[in-house]
Amino acid sequence: MIGAHLRLPVGSVDLTSHDTRATPGFDGGKSEGKEALTDLDSTLSDLQERLFAEGQRGGSRAVLLVLQGMDTSGKGGVVRHTVGLVDPQGVDITAFKAPTEEERGHDFLWRIRKALPTPGRIGVFDRSHYEDVLIAKVRDLADADEIERRYEAINEFEADVVASGTHILKCMLHVSPDAQKERLLERLERPDKHWKFNPGDIDERQVWPAYREAYEVALERTNTEIAPWHVVPADRKWYRNLAIGLLLRDTLAQMRPTWPDADFDVEEQRARLTDEAPVA
Amino acid sequence: MIGAHLRLPVGSVDLTSHDTRATPGFDGGKSEGKEALTDLDSTLSDLQERLFAEGQRGGSRAVLLVLQGMDTSGKGGVVRHTVGLVDPQGVDITAFKAPTEEERGHDFLWRIRKALPTPGRIGVFDRSHYEDVLIAKVRDLADADEIERRYEAINEFEADVVASGTHILKCMLHVSPDAQKERLLERLERPDKHWKFNPGDIDERQVWPAYREAYEVALERTNTEIAPWHVVPADRKWYRNLAIGLLLRDTLAQMRPTWPDADFDVEEQRARLTDEAPVA
Repeated sequence: MIGAHLRLPVGSVDLTSHDTRATPGFDGGKSEGKEALTDLDSTLSDLQERLFAEGQRGGSRAVLLVLQGMDTSGKGGVVRHTVGLVDPQGVDITAFKAPTEEERGHDFLWRIRKALPTPGRIGVFDRSHYEDVLIAKVRDLADADEIERRYEAINEFEADVVASGTHILKCMLHVSPDAQKERLLERLERPDKHWKFNPGDIDERQVWPAYREAYEVALERTNTEIAPWHVVPADRKWYRNLAIGLLLRDTLAQMRPTWPDADFDVEEQRARLTDEAPVA
Repeated sequence: MIGAHLRLPVGSVDLTSHDTRATPGFDGGKSEGKEALTDLDSTLSDLQERLFAEGQRGGSRAVLLVLQGMDTSGKGGVVRHTVGLVDPQGVDITAFKAPTEEERGHDFLWRIRKALPTPGRIGVFDRSHYEDVLIAKVRDLADADEIERRYEAINEFEADVVASGTHILKCMLHVSPDAQKERLLERLERPDKHWKFNPGDIDERQVWPAYREAYEVALERTNTEIAPWHVVPADRKWYRNLAIGLLLRDTLAQMRPTWPDADFDVEEQRARLTDEAPVA
Protein backbone atom coordinates (compact mmCIF):
# COMPACT_ATOMS: atom_id res chain seq x y z
CA MET A 1 0.00 0.00 0.00
CA ILE A 2 1.69 3.16 -1.22
CA GLY A 3 -0.50 5.16 1.19
CA ALA A 4 1.59 3.95 4.13
CA HIS A 5 4.51 5.83 2.61
CA LEU A 6 2.74 8.96 1.47
CA ARG A 7 0.07 9.58 4.03
CA LEU A 8 0.93 12.66 6.02
CA PRO A 9 1.24 11.99 9.76
CA VAL A 10 -1.13 14.00 11.92
CA GLY A 11 0.49 16.99 13.57
CA SER A 12 2.57 19.95 12.52
CA VAL A 13 3.91 19.84 8.98
CA ASP A 14 7.39 20.70 7.75
CA LEU A 15 7.49 20.35 3.98
CA THR A 16 11.25 20.85 3.86
CA SER A 17 11.55 17.45 5.55
CA HIS A 18 9.84 15.78 2.58
CA ASP A 19 12.31 14.99 -0.20
CA THR A 20 10.81 16.06 -3.54
CA ARG A 21 13.04 13.62 -5.47
CA ALA A 22 12.33 10.57 -3.33
CA THR A 23 10.38 7.55 -4.57
CA PRO A 24 8.89 6.17 -1.35
CA GLY A 25 7.40 2.71 -1.61
CA PHE A 26 8.89 2.01 -5.04
CA ASP A 27 12.26 0.36 -5.59
CA GLY A 28 12.67 0.69 -9.32
CA GLY A 29 13.77 3.56 -11.54
CA LYS A 30 12.12 5.48 -14.36
CA SER A 31 11.60 2.67 -16.85
CA GLU A 32 10.28 0.26 -14.21
CA GLY A 33 8.04 3.06 -12.92
CA LYS A 34 6.54 3.74 -16.33
CA GLU A 35 6.01 0.03 -16.87
CA ALA A 36 4.35 -0.29 -13.46
CA LEU A 37 1.92 2.50 -14.42
CA THR A 38 1.09 0.78 -17.70
CA ASP A 39 0.53 -2.45 -15.79
CA LEU A 40 -1.96 -0.64 -13.54
CA ASP A 41 -4.23 0.07 -16.50
CA SER A 42 -6.37 -3.05 -16.44
CA THR A 43 -6.76 -3.15 -12.65
CA LEU A 44 -7.69 0.52 -12.48
CA SER A 45 -10.07 0.20 -15.42
CA ASP A 46 -11.76 -2.81 -13.91
CA LEU A 47 -12.26 -1.15 -10.52
CA GLN A 48 -13.49 2.05 -12.14
CA GLU A 49 -15.99 0.17 -14.29
CA ARG A 50 -17.34 -1.68 -11.26
CA LEU A 51 -17.80 1.58 -9.40
CA PHE A 52 -19.50 3.06 -12.46
CA ALA A 53 -21.79 0.04 -12.80
CA GLU A 54 -22.71 0.34 -9.15
CA GLY A 55 -23.61 4.01 -9.68
CA GLN A 56 -25.75 3.14 -12.70
CA ARG A 57 -27.73 0.66 -10.62
CA GLY A 58 -28.59 2.75 -7.61
CA GLY A 59 -25.29 2.85 -5.72
CA SER A 60 -24.34 6.11 -4.04
CA ARG A 61 -20.57 5.83 -3.80
CA ALA A 62 -18.05 7.93 -5.69
CA VAL A 63 -14.40 9.00 -5.51
CA LEU A 64 -12.99 12.49 -5.37
CA LEU A 65 -9.31 12.97 -6.20
CA VAL A 66 -8.05 16.38 -5.08
CA LEU A 67 -4.81 17.52 -6.72
CA GLN A 68 -2.97 20.46 -5.23
CA GLY A 69 0.52 21.74 -5.89
CA MET A 70 2.53 24.70 -7.09
CA ASP A 71 2.61 25.59 -10.79
CA THR A 72 4.37 22.89 -12.85
CA SER A 73 4.00 20.32 -10.06
CA GLY A 74 2.16 18.19 -12.58
CA LYS A 75 -1.53 18.25 -11.81
CA GLY A 76 -2.27 18.21 -15.52
CA GLY A 77 0.27 15.47 -16.11
CA VAL A 78 -1.42 13.26 -13.54
CA VAL A 79 -4.81 13.78 -15.16
CA ARG A 80 -3.40 12.95 -18.56
CA HIS A 81 -1.20 9.98 -17.73
CA THR A 82 -2.88 8.43 -14.69
CA VAL A 83 -6.54 9.42 -14.75
CA GLY A 84 -6.32 9.05 -18.54
CA LEU A 85 -5.90 5.29 -18.08
CA VAL A 86 -9.54 4.75 -17.20
CA ASP A 87 -12.70 5.14 -19.26
CA PRO A 88 -13.29 8.89 -19.65
CA GLN A 89 -17.04 8.27 -19.43
CA GLY A 90 -16.71 7.64 -15.72
CA VAL A 91 -14.54 10.65 -14.90
CA ASP A 92 -15.39 14.29 -14.22
CA ILE A 93 -12.46 16.66 -14.29
CA THR A 94 -12.75 20.19 -12.99
CA ALA A 95 -9.89 22.67 -13.26
CA PHE A 96 -10.56 25.48 -10.82
CA LYS A 97 -9.30 28.86 -11.96
CA ALA A 98 -9.56 32.22 -10.20
CA PRO A 99 -13.22 32.48 -9.19
CA THR A 100 -15.57 34.34 -11.50
CA GLU A 101 -17.60 37.31 -10.33
CA GLU A 102 -20.62 35.06 -9.83
CA GLU A 103 -18.56 32.57 -7.84
CA ARG A 104 -17.12 35.34 -5.67
CA GLY A 105 -20.69 36.30 -4.79
CA HIS A 106 -21.13 32.95 -3.04
CA ASP A 107 -19.38 31.12 -0.21
CA PHE A 108 -16.07 29.66 -1.41
CA LEU A 109 -17.49 26.12 -1.27
CA TRP A 110 -20.41 26.91 -3.58
CA ARG A 111 -18.60 26.16 -6.82
CA ILE A 112 -16.90 23.15 -5.22
CA ARG A 113 -20.20 21.54 -4.22
CA LYS A 114 -21.48 21.91 -7.77
CA ALA A 115 -18.49 19.99 -9.10
CA LEU A 116 -18.69 16.99 -6.77
CA PRO A 117 -18.85 13.62 -8.54
CA THR A 118 -22.24 11.97 -8.85
CA PRO A 119 -22.65 8.29 -7.84
CA GLY A 120 -20.33 5.84 -9.56
CA ARG A 121 -17.99 8.49 -10.86
CA ILE A 122 -14.45 9.58 -10.20
CA GLY A 123 -14.25 13.34 -9.75
CA VAL A 124 -10.89 15.01 -10.20
CA PHE A 125 -10.16 18.49 -8.92
CA ASP A 126 -7.19 20.19 -10.56
CA ARG A 127 -6.79 22.78 -7.79
CA SER A 128 -9.71 22.97 -5.42
CA HIS A 129 -11.23 24.63 -2.38
CA TYR A 130 -7.70 24.59 -0.95
CA GLU A 131 -6.82 27.55 -3.14
CA ASP A 132 -9.09 29.51 -0.84
CA VAL A 133 -6.64 28.98 2.02
CA LEU A 134 -3.49 29.04 -0.13
CA ILE A 135 -3.39 31.86 -2.68
CA ALA A 136 -6.14 33.54 -0.66
CA LYS A 137 -3.83 33.61 2.35
CA VAL A 138 -0.60 34.44 0.52
CA ARG A 139 -2.21 37.22 -1.53
CA ASP A 140 -4.52 38.51 1.20
CA LEU A 141 -7.65 37.78 -0.82
CA ALA A 142 -9.48 37.18 2.46
CA ASP A 143 -8.74 38.42 5.95
CA ALA A 144 -7.16 36.26 8.62
CA ASP A 145 -10.43 35.49 10.43
CA GLU A 146 -12.03 34.30 7.25
CA ILE A 147 -9.05 32.09 6.39
CA GLU A 148 -9.24 30.69 9.91
CA ARG A 149 -12.94 29.95 9.46
CA ARG A 150 -12.29 28.18 6.19
CA TYR A 151 -10.12 25.40 7.62
CA GLU A 152 -13.02 24.32 9.79
CA ALA A 153 -15.53 24.85 6.99
CA ILE A 154 -13.43 22.60 4.75
CA ASN A 155 -13.29 19.86 7.38
CA GLU A 156 -17.03 19.98 7.90
CA PHE A 157 -17.66 20.02 4.18
CA GLU A 158 -15.38 17.06 3.57
CA ALA A 159 -17.00 15.16 6.43
CA ASP A 160 -20.38 15.67 4.75
CA VAL A 161 -18.99 14.54 1.42
CA VAL A 162 -17.52 11.39 2.93
CA ALA A 163 -20.73 10.70 4.82
CA SER A 164 -22.63 10.87 1.53
CA GLY A 165 -20.52 8.01 0.19
CA THR A 166 -17.73 9.80 -1.65
CA HIS A 167 -14.21 8.71 -0.81
CA ILE A 168 -11.80 11.63 -0.83
CA LEU A 169 -8.18 11.18 -1.88
CA LYS A 170 -6.17 14.36 -1.28
CA CYS A 171 -2.74 14.65 -2.87
CA MET A 172 -0.25 17.47 -2.59
CA LEU A 173 2.21 17.26 -5.47
CA HIS A 174 5.41 18.33 -3.80
CA VAL A 175 7.84 19.90 -6.23
CA SER A 176 11.07 21.74 -5.45
CA PRO A 177 11.68 25.34 -6.55
CA ASP A 178 14.62 24.10 -8.63
CA ALA A 179 12.48 21.61 -10.51
CA GLN A 180 9.88 24.32 -11.03
CA LYS A 181 12.50 26.66 -12.45
CA GLU A 182 13.66 24.01 -14.89
CA ARG A 183 10.07 23.36 -16.03
CA LEU A 184 9.26 27.04 -16.42
CA LEU A 185 12.44 27.53 -18.47
CA GLU A 186 11.42 24.58 -20.64
CA ARG A 187 8.05 26.22 -21.26
CA LEU A 188 9.86 29.34 -22.41
CA GLU A 189 12.27 27.34 -24.53
CA ARG A 190 9.65 25.46 -26.52
CA PRO A 191 7.12 27.31 -28.68
CA ASP A 192 4.71 24.37 -28.23
CA LYS A 193 4.78 25.08 -24.48
CA HIS A 194 4.40 28.86 -24.57
CA TRP A 195 0.64 28.59 -24.11
CA LYS A 196 1.21 26.95 -20.75
CA PHE A 197 3.31 29.82 -19.47
CA ASN A 198 2.00 32.82 -17.61
CA PRO A 199 4.25 35.60 -16.32
CA GLY A 200 2.12 35.41 -13.16
CA ASP A 201 3.66 31.98 -12.48
CA ILE A 202 6.96 33.73 -11.73
CA ASP A 203 5.22 36.23 -9.45
CA GLU A 204 3.87 33.34 -7.38
CA ARG A 205 7.23 31.62 -7.42
CA GLN A 206 8.81 34.69 -5.89
CA VAL A 207 6.78 34.20 -2.73
CA TRP A 208 7.57 30.48 -2.50
CA PRO A 209 8.23 30.52 1.28
CA ALA A 210 4.84 32.12 1.89
CA TYR A 211 3.21 29.37 -0.17
CA ARG A 212 5.15 26.69 1.64
CA GLU A 213 3.94 28.07 4.93
CA ALA A 214 0.36 28.36 3.70
CA TYR A 215 0.53 24.73 2.53
CA GLU A 216 1.98 23.60 5.83
CA VAL A 217 -0.80 25.22 7.82
CA ALA A 218 -3.52 24.03 5.43
CA LEU A 219 -2.19 20.46 5.42
CA GLU A 220 -1.95 20.40 9.18
CA ARG A 221 -5.39 21.82 9.76
CA THR A 222 -7.22 19.66 7.25
CA ASN A 223 -5.35 16.37 7.64
CA THR A 224 -8.35 14.55 9.06
CA GLU A 225 -8.83 10.87 9.58
CA ILE A 226 -11.68 10.68 7.08
CA ALA A 227 -9.86 12.74 4.45
CA PRO A 228 -6.12 12.58 5.09
CA TRP A 229 -3.45 14.26 3.01
CA HIS A 230 -0.81 12.53 0.95
CA VAL A 231 2.40 14.34 0.10
CA VAL A 232 3.61 13.01 -3.24
CA PRO A 233 7.21 13.78 -4.23
CA ALA A 234 6.83 15.33 -7.67
CA ASP A 235 10.26 16.16 -9.01
CA ARG A 236 10.26 12.85 -10.85
CA LYS A 237 7.24 12.87 -13.13
CA TRP A 238 7.13 9.10 -13.55
CA TYR A 239 7.01 8.57 -9.80
CA ARG A 240 4.34 11.20 -9.32
CA ASN A 241 2.12 9.59 -11.97
CA LEU A 242 2.67 6.10 -10.63
CA ALA A 243 2.15 7.07 -6.99
CA ILE A 244 -1.21 8.69 -7.71
CA GLY A 245 -2.18 5.67 -9.78
CA LEU A 246 -1.38 3.37 -6.88
CA LEU A 247 -3.22 5.60 -4.39
CA LEU A 248 -6.25 5.65 -6.67
CA ARG A 249 -6.12 1.89 -7.10
CA ASP A 250 -5.88 1.36 -3.34
CA THR A 251 -8.78 3.75 -2.73
CA LEU A 252 -10.96 1.91 -5.24
CA ALA A 253 -9.85 -1.54 -4.08
CA GLN A 254 -10.72 -0.66 -0.50
CA MET A 255 -14.24 0.20 -1.61
CA ARG A 256 -14.61 -3.29 -3.12
CA PRO A 257 -17.06 -2.29 -5.81
CA THR A 258 -18.90 -5.37 -7.08
CA TRP A 259 -20.90 -5.97 -10.23
CA PRO A 260 -24.54 -5.20 -9.48
CA ASP A 261 -27.00 -8.05 -9.50
CA ALA A 262 -29.41 -8.23 -12.41
CA ASP A 263 -32.71 -6.53 -11.59
CA PHE A 264 -34.45 -8.65 -14.22
CA ASP A 265 -34.89 -12.35 -14.85
CA VAL A 266 -31.90 -13.40 -16.94
CA GLU A 267 -33.49 -16.59 -18.29
CA GLU A 268 -36.69 -14.78 -19.23
CA GLN A 269 -34.77 -12.14 -21.17
CA ARG A 270 -32.62 -14.74 -22.86
CA ALA A 271 -35.75 -16.57 -23.97
CA ARG A 272 -37.17 -13.36 -25.42
CA LEU A 273 -34.09 -13.13 -27.63
CA THR A 274 -33.71 -16.76 -28.59
CA ASP A 275 -37.41 -17.28 -29.32
CA GLU A 276 -38.00 -14.03 -31.15
CA ALA A 277 -39.48 -13.67 -34.61
CA PRO A 278 -37.04 -12.25 -37.19
CA VAL A 279 -36.63 -8.55 -36.46
CA ALA A 280 -35.57 -7.12 -39.78
CA MET B 1 -9.18 10.23 -45.96
CA ILE B 2 -11.57 7.72 -44.49
CA GLY B 3 -14.36 10.28 -44.88
CA ALA B 4 -14.44 9.66 -48.63
CA HIS B 5 -15.57 6.11 -47.82
CA LEU B 6 -17.96 6.82 -45.00
CA ARG B 7 -19.56 10.11 -45.86
CA LEU B 8 -23.18 9.56 -46.71
CA PRO B 9 -24.08 10.76 -50.21
CA VAL B 10 -26.77 13.42 -50.34
CA GLY B 11 -30.18 12.06 -51.28
CA SER B 12 -32.46 9.31 -50.13
CA VAL B 13 -30.97 6.79 -47.76
CA ASP B 14 -31.28 3.02 -47.81
CA LEU B 15 -29.44 1.60 -44.83
CA THR B 16 -29.86 -1.97 -46.04
CA SER B 17 -27.44 -1.10 -48.82
CA HIS B 18 -24.69 -0.34 -46.26
CA ASP B 19 -22.88 -3.51 -45.23
CA THR B 20 -22.49 -3.54 -41.43
CA ARG B 21 -19.51 -5.90 -41.60
CA ALA B 22 -17.56 -3.99 -44.22
CA THR B 23 -14.29 -2.19 -43.53
CA PRO B 24 -14.31 0.59 -46.13
CA GLY B 25 -11.03 2.42 -46.58
CA PHE B 26 -9.02 -0.10 -44.59
CA ASP B 27 -7.31 -3.13 -46.10
CA GLY B 28 -6.09 -4.93 -42.99
CA GLY B 29 -7.83 -7.19 -40.52
CA LYS B 30 -8.44 -7.04 -36.80
CA SER B 31 -4.87 -7.04 -35.52
CA GLU B 32 -3.74 -4.47 -38.10
CA GLY B 33 -6.80 -2.38 -37.24
CA LYS B 34 -6.04 -2.38 -33.54
CA GLU B 35 -2.44 -1.51 -34.26
CA ALA B 36 -3.51 1.32 -36.54
CA LEU B 37 -5.66 2.74 -33.76
CA THR B 38 -2.75 2.57 -31.30
CA ASP B 39 -0.58 4.30 -33.87
CA LEU B 40 -3.13 7.12 -34.09
CA ASP B 41 -2.59 7.99 -30.43
CA SER B 42 0.26 10.47 -30.77
CA THR B 43 -1.17 12.24 -33.83
CA LEU B 44 -4.61 12.57 -32.25
CA SER B 45 -3.12 13.71 -28.94
CA ASP B 46 -0.95 16.29 -30.65
CA LEU B 47 -3.84 17.73 -32.67
CA GLN B 48 -6.12 17.76 -29.63
CA GLU B 49 -3.53 19.55 -27.52
CA ARG B 50 -3.04 22.20 -30.21
CA LEU B 51 -6.78 22.79 -30.36
CA PHE B 52 -6.90 22.98 -26.57
CA ALA B 53 -3.98 25.43 -26.47
CA GLU B 54 -5.73 27.57 -29.07
CA GLY B 55 -8.85 27.63 -26.90
CA GLN B 56 -6.85 28.61 -23.83
CA ARG B 57 -5.43 31.57 -25.70
CA GLY B 58 -8.54 33.15 -27.11
CA GLY B 59 -9.38 30.80 -29.96
CA SER B 60 -13.05 30.04 -30.58
CA ARG B 61 -12.90 26.70 -32.38
CA ALA B 62 -14.08 23.37 -31.04
CA VAL B 63 -15.12 19.94 -32.27
CA LEU B 64 -18.39 18.12 -31.67
CA LEU B 65 -18.51 14.38 -32.27
CA VAL B 66 -22.08 13.10 -32.45
CA LEU B 67 -22.48 9.35 -31.95
CA GLN B 68 -25.77 7.74 -32.85
CA GLY B 69 -26.70 4.11 -33.22
CA MET B 70 -28.93 1.35 -31.94
CA ASP B 71 -28.26 -0.24 -28.53
CA THR B 72 -24.96 -2.17 -28.51
CA SER B 73 -23.73 -0.39 -31.64
CA GLY B 74 -20.75 0.70 -29.58
CA LYS B 75 -21.11 4.37 -28.72
CA GLY B 76 -19.57 3.69 -25.33
CA GLY B 77 -16.83 1.58 -26.87
CA VAL B 78 -15.85 4.43 -29.17
CA VAL B 79 -15.66 6.84 -26.26
CA ARG B 80 -13.53 4.44 -24.28
CA HIS B 81 -11.17 3.19 -26.96
CA THR B 82 -10.97 6.09 -29.39
CA VAL B 83 -11.84 9.27 -27.52
CA GLY B 84 -9.96 7.74 -24.56
CA LEU B 85 -6.71 8.11 -26.52
CA VAL B 86 -6.56 11.86 -25.98
CA ASP B 87 -6.08 13.91 -22.84
CA PRO B 88 -9.35 13.73 -20.88
CA GLN B 89 -8.85 17.34 -19.80
CA GLY B 90 -9.77 18.50 -23.28
CA VAL B 91 -12.85 16.35 -23.72
CA ASP B 92 -16.48 16.80 -22.60
CA ILE B 93 -18.62 13.69 -22.84
CA THR B 94 -22.37 13.89 -22.52
CA ALA B 95 -24.54 10.78 -22.53
CA PHE B 96 -28.10 11.83 -23.27
CA LYS B 97 -30.73 9.73 -21.57
CA ALA B 98 -34.51 10.07 -21.69
CA PRO B 99 -35.15 13.76 -20.98
CA THR B 100 -35.89 14.76 -17.39
CA GLU B 101 -39.07 16.57 -16.47
CA GLU B 102 -37.21 19.88 -16.50
CA GLU B 103 -35.76 19.12 -19.93
CA ARG B 104 -39.16 18.17 -21.28
CA GLY B 105 -40.37 21.62 -20.22
CA HIS B 106 -38.04 23.20 -22.78
CA ASP B 107 -37.51 22.93 -26.52
CA PHE B 108 -35.68 19.68 -27.39
CA LEU B 109 -32.50 21.59 -28.24
CA TRP B 110 -32.29 23.30 -24.84
CA ARG B 111 -30.29 20.56 -23.13
CA ILE B 112 -28.20 20.06 -26.26
CA ARG B 113 -27.10 23.71 -26.38
CA LYS B 114 -26.00 23.54 -22.74
CA ALA B 115 -23.73 20.60 -23.53
CA LEU B 116 -21.93 22.13 -26.52
CA PRO B 117 -18.13 22.14 -26.21
CA THR B 118 -16.48 25.39 -25.21
CA PRO B 119 -13.52 26.72 -27.25
CA GLY B 120 -10.59 24.37 -27.63
CA ARG B 121 -12.50 21.33 -26.52
CA ILE B 122 -13.79 18.14 -28.09
CA GLY B 123 -17.39 17.53 -27.16
CA VAL B 124 -18.75 14.03 -27.53
CA PHE B 125 -22.47 13.29 -27.62
CA ASP B 126 -23.37 9.68 -26.80
CA ARG B 127 -26.85 9.93 -28.29
CA SER B 128 -27.98 13.44 -29.05
CA HIS B 129 -30.72 15.70 -30.39
CA TYR B 130 -31.27 13.00 -33.01
CA GLU B 131 -33.09 10.90 -30.44
CA ASP B 132 -35.81 13.54 -30.74
CA VAL B 133 -36.47 12.44 -34.31
CA LEU B 134 -35.69 8.74 -33.75
CA ILE B 135 -37.23 7.24 -30.62
CA ALA B 136 -39.58 10.25 -30.57
CA LYS B 137 -40.86 9.24 -34.01
CA VAL B 138 -40.90 5.48 -33.45
CA ARG B 139 -42.59 5.76 -30.07
CA ASP B 140 -44.90 8.66 -30.94
CA LEU B 141 -43.40 10.89 -28.27
CA ALA B 142 -44.14 13.87 -30.51
CA ASP B 143 -46.69 14.29 -33.27
CA ALA B 144 -45.79 14.17 -36.94
CA ASP B 145 -45.82 17.96 -37.41
CA GLU B 146 -43.44 18.44 -34.54
CA ILE B 147 -41.08 15.75 -35.85
CA GLU B 148 -41.22 17.45 -39.24
CA ARG B 149 -40.35 20.80 -37.65
CA ARG B 150 -37.41 19.26 -35.81
CA TYR B 151 -35.47 18.25 -38.93
CA GLU B 152 -35.34 21.88 -39.95
CA ALA B 153 -34.67 23.06 -36.40
CA ILE B 154 -31.72 20.66 -36.23
CA ASN B 155 -30.28 21.93 -39.49
CA GLU B 156 -30.59 25.54 -38.38
CA PHE B 157 -29.13 24.73 -34.99
CA GLU B 158 -26.17 22.90 -36.49
CA ALA B 159 -25.57 25.73 -38.94
CA ASP B 160 -25.34 28.12 -35.98
CA VAL B 161 -22.98 25.81 -34.16
CA VAL B 162 -20.72 25.51 -37.20
CA ALA B 163 -20.84 29.28 -37.74
CA SER B 164 -19.65 29.76 -34.15
CA GLY B 165 -16.50 27.79 -34.93
CA THR B 166 -17.42 24.27 -33.86
CA HIS B 167 -16.77 21.53 -36.40
CA ILE B 168 -19.45 18.84 -36.26
CA LEU B 169 -18.61 15.22 -36.99
CA LYS B 170 -21.77 13.10 -37.13
CA CYS B 171 -21.42 9.32 -37.06
CA MET B 172 -24.12 6.72 -37.26
CA LEU B 173 -22.78 3.41 -35.92
CA HIS B 174 -24.45 0.93 -38.20
CA VAL B 175 -24.92 -2.43 -36.57
CA SER B 176 -26.94 -5.41 -37.84
CA PRO B 177 -29.78 -6.94 -35.84
CA ASP B 178 -27.80 -10.19 -35.73
CA ALA B 179 -24.77 -8.52 -34.21
CA GLN B 180 -27.01 -6.77 -31.72
CA LYS B 181 -28.61 -10.06 -30.73
CA GLU B 182 -25.20 -11.59 -30.12
CA ARG B 183 -24.14 -8.63 -27.97
CA LEU B 184 -27.35 -8.63 -25.96
CA LEU B 185 -26.97 -12.37 -25.34
CA GLU B 186 -23.41 -11.76 -24.20
CA ARG B 187 -24.64 -9.15 -21.73
CA LEU B 188 -27.04 -11.75 -20.35
CA GLU B 189 -24.35 -14.42 -20.28
CA ARG B 190 -21.82 -12.45 -18.26
CA PRO B 191 -22.63 -11.24 -14.73
CA ASP B 192 -20.13 -8.38 -15.22
CA LYS B 193 -22.28 -7.18 -18.14
CA HIS B 194 -25.71 -7.47 -16.52
CA TRP B 195 -25.64 -3.82 -15.48
CA LYS B 196 -25.48 -2.83 -19.15
CA PHE B 197 -28.62 -4.75 -20.00
CA ASN B 198 -32.13 -3.34 -19.91
CA PRO B 199 -35.19 -5.36 -20.87
CA GLY B 200 -36.27 -2.23 -22.74
CA ASP B 201 -33.43 -2.83 -25.20
CA ILE B 202 -35.34 -5.85 -26.49
CA ASP B 203 -38.54 -3.81 -26.78
CA GLU B 204 -36.73 -1.35 -29.03
CA ARG B 205 -35.14 -4.19 -30.98
CA GLN B 206 -38.57 -5.54 -31.77
CA VAL B 207 -39.39 -2.43 -33.78
CA TRP B 208 -36.10 -2.50 -35.67
CA PRO B 209 -37.65 -1.72 -39.09
CA ALA B 210 -39.34 1.36 -37.63
CA TYR B 211 -35.99 2.54 -36.26
CA ARG B 212 -34.29 1.85 -39.56
CA GLU B 213 -36.87 3.95 -41.31
CA ALA B 214 -36.60 6.74 -38.76
CA TYR B 215 -32.82 6.72 -39.18
CA GLU B 216 -33.13 6.79 -42.95
CA VAL B 217 -35.40 9.82 -42.88
CA ALA B 218 -33.33 11.61 -40.24
CA LEU B 219 -30.07 10.96 -42.08
CA GLU B 220 -31.54 12.13 -45.36
CA ARG B 221 -33.08 15.30 -43.94
CA THR B 222 -30.05 16.38 -41.90
CA ASN B 223 -27.22 15.33 -44.19
CA THR B 224 -26.11 18.88 -44.85
CA GLU B 225 -22.94 20.12 -46.45
CA ILE B 226 -21.76 21.81 -43.27
CA ALA B 227 -22.60 18.84 -41.04
CA PRO B 228 -22.71 15.69 -43.13
CA TRP B 229 -23.44 12.21 -41.84
CA HIS B 230 -21.03 9.32 -41.83
CA VAL B 231 -22.34 5.77 -41.73
CA VAL B 232 -19.79 3.63 -39.92
CA PRO B 233 -20.11 -0.16 -40.24
CA ALA B 234 -20.15 -1.30 -36.63
CA ASP B 235 -20.39 -5.07 -36.58
CA ARG B 236 -16.61 -5.22 -36.25
CA LYS B 237 -15.68 -3.30 -33.12
CA TRP B 238 -12.07 -2.79 -34.13
CA TYR B 239 -13.09 -1.19 -37.43
CA ARG B 240 -15.70 1.03 -35.79
CA ASN B 241 -13.14 2.35 -33.24
CA LEU B 242 -10.50 2.88 -35.89
CA ALA B 243 -12.84 4.54 -38.38
CA ILE B 244 -14.03 7.10 -35.83
CA GLY B 245 -10.42 7.70 -34.82
CA LEU B 246 -9.49 8.40 -38.42
CA LEU B 247 -12.52 10.64 -38.94
CA LEU B 248 -11.63 12.58 -35.81
CA ARG B 249 -8.03 12.89 -36.90
CA ASP B 250 -9.06 14.14 -40.33
CA THR B 251 -11.47 16.64 -38.79
CA LEU B 252 -8.78 18.01 -36.48
CA ALA B 253 -6.09 17.96 -39.16
CA GLN B 254 -8.33 19.93 -41.50
CA MET B 255 -8.66 22.63 -38.84
CA ARG B 256 -4.86 22.95 -38.71
CA PRO B 257 -4.66 24.06 -35.11
CA THR B 258 -1.34 25.77 -34.44
CA TRP B 259 0.49 26.54 -31.20
CA PRO B 260 -0.53 30.01 -30.08
CA ASP B 261 2.11 32.74 -30.14
CA ALA B 262 3.43 33.88 -26.79
CA ASP B 263 1.55 36.92 -25.53
CA PHE B 264 4.56 37.88 -23.39
CA ASP B 265 8.21 38.67 -24.06
CA VAL B 266 10.00 35.31 -23.89
CA GLU B 267 13.46 36.81 -23.31
CA GLU B 268 12.22 39.08 -20.57
CA GLN B 269 10.57 36.19 -18.74
CA ARG B 270 13.62 34.00 -19.15
CA ALA B 271 15.76 36.75 -17.62
CA ARG B 272 13.40 37.00 -14.67
CA LEU B 273 14.06 33.32 -13.97
CA THR B 274 17.79 33.19 -14.65
CA ASP B 275 18.56 36.41 -12.75
CA GLU B 276 16.33 35.75 -9.77
CA ALA B 277 17.38 35.75 -6.15
CA PRO B 278 17.10 32.32 -4.45
CA VAL B 279 13.43 31.64 -3.89
CA ALA B 280 13.48 29.25 -0.98
